[in-house]
Amino acid sequence: MMAICKNPELCAEVSILPVEILGVDAAIIFADIMLPLESVGIRFQIKEGVGPIVTDPIRNLRAAQSLGRFAGADVPFVLEAIRLIKQKLNGRAPLIGFSGAPFTLASYIIEGRPTRDFTKTKALMYQDPETWHILMDELATVTTSYLRSQIHAGVDAIQVFDSWVGCLSPQDYREYVLPYSQRVFRDLENAGVPRIHFGTGTSSLLTEMKEAGGDVFGVDWRIPVDEAWHRLGHEVSVQGNLDPAVLLGDIALIKSHAADILRRASGRTGHIFNLGHGMLPTVQVEKVVELVRFVHNFAQEWGELS
Amino acid sequence: MMAICKNPELCAEVSILPVEILGVDAAIIFADIMLPLESVGIRFQIKEGVGPIVTDPIRNLRAAQSLGRFAGADVPFVLEAIRLIKQKLNGRAPLIGFSGAPFTLASYIIEGRPTRDFTKTKALMYQDPETWHILMDELATVTTSYLRSQIHAGVDAIQVFDSWVGCLSPQDYREYVLPYSQRVFRDLENAGVPRIHFGTGTSSLLTEMKEAGGDVFGVDWRIPVDEAWHRLGHEVSVQGNLDPAVLLGDIALIKSHAADILRRASGRTGHIFNLGHGMLPTVQVEKVVELVRFVHNFAQEWGELS
Repeated sequence: MMAICKNPELCAEVSILPVEILGVDAAIIFADIMLPLESVGIRFQIKEGVGPIVTDPIRNLRAAQSLGRFAGADVPFVLEAIRLIKQKLNGRAPLIGFSGAPFTLASYIIEGRPTRDFTKTKALMYQDPETWHILMDELATVTTSYLRSQIHAGVDAIQVFDSWVGCLSPQDYREYVLPYSQRVFRDLENAGVPRIHFGTGTSSLLTEMKEAGGDVFGVDWRIPVDEAWHRLGHEVSVQGNLDPAVLLGDIALIKSHAADILRRASGRTGHIFNLGHGMLPTVQVEKVVELVRFVHNFAQEWGELS
Repeated sequence: MMAICKNPELCAEVSILPVEILGVDAAIIFADIMLPLESVGIRFQIKEGVGPIVTDPIRNLRAAQSLGRFAGADVPFVLEAIRLIKQKLNGRAPLIGFSGAPFTLASYIIEGRPTRDFTKTKALMYQDPETWHILMDELATVTTSYLRSQIHAGVDAIQVFDSWVGCLSPQDYREYVLPYSQRVFRDLENAGVPRIHFGTGTSSLLTEMKEAGGDVFGVDWRIPVDEAWHRLGHEVSVQGNLDPAVLLGDIALIKSHAADILRRASGRTGHIFNLGHGMLPTVQVEKVVELVRFVHNFAQEWGELS
């Protein structure tokens, strides 16, 4: 994983594969969510089948204050990969840059390894709010700088992954997370690219996430896409929301789930069909190709009908 | 864990501790969610700090069909413990019996070990619906019989734990889960005890869970309790919904979170104050005692005000 991320030529080749093989409408840079954290002093290993394991998790004020400043120059390979991908795509599809959101980055470096209940993250948040706020402030700066570097290098849109924020209550989101995500989205408001705000398990956080900011909101399968859109308001765009596990079923099942989403989106401008979370490694490529074709045809039929 | 569960005297002593030490208003039988499954042929070990590990996970039709029939006589220790707890409580507090719901039991025996994404469960559900429906049908029978035995032995209420059902979309819940949970609740409709229907991450499943049945609905912290109640309808009762991790904070933080829940419940009849999920092992007992006292006083003040 890290070897590919740090080799711009290889990274660029991998990043354009989904456009070339699956036929999707946009590429996203192939990168690990931990990349910008390495340059501020977090040491970690990606353990296969597990995820990132942090050598010294951040759990006190001293550790939070010891984090260095992030600069685009710290991830030259990411920026070089972006330039190469843009060349290789040559206008065929836009390129999305991305970063973890402050909360999700915090959860990785506090827990130190994958978790189901985020107990250590919440323990720090509740027990030591001073450290929490210093850490989140720092991570908001990292996220913004990292995304700014990517925009400068040429990405056409950015996505902020707050993948694990659904473990919080709306009240705690508002107090411990919203100000920092809001700063990221505000700082990038005039950067000239659409901003996608992604989370999972966020059915009851949508109002708060919208307040934090973004032009497009990524939602998972736990909420019907029309209901999510209704709660967010129709002036924003919505991305989602097929359960990635549906791709383990046969093509008839996949199409029926996809059709349900497309019908709920009613051919309205501003729906980006997508999975509600990452692709499972066991999924057969041919099924994804067929799904992409199905979505494109469905979209075309809507176009002809309206 | 299993040694305590299978020793009725010990189990009874442990079960009444929360009433005696914490001062809570009800006891729940100390039991492992896997207990009724042992008697239908599932072999497992409880691995400390991990959870139940199933020796031969159920992943095909043959395995699903090989499950035996459950009978109350298979868990004599549970029923004897219930009789002992009732004696020991001697009317001081009601006793709640419980079982896993069909989906949550299925997820344990299909995955074979704790999971974050329930991929194997969903794979079976999507790839082999015949096996899925046979398994769920069987587990609904186990759940109903197990709860019926507990009611017969003397519990005053029953709780059905669908702890992991929040990983599903509302549409999939309706197709793959609702008919089985509904059968459990219908079969126990006239059993003469209140039925509590519990889940986590169920913010967008509440309408469907209500349709499946229950007199009381347990919700976690991911949705404000008043919003959950509004969606469920005020003719049902609601249980919840403090994040167990809040108990890692200091007492001022705990009280402020508890007060928010109590204010949202507005002293309305039919709110059972509770954690939104299980107690974390690292929580200090004194904090829980103080929380229980705070909730009792708060409830009393509401009573005096109204």
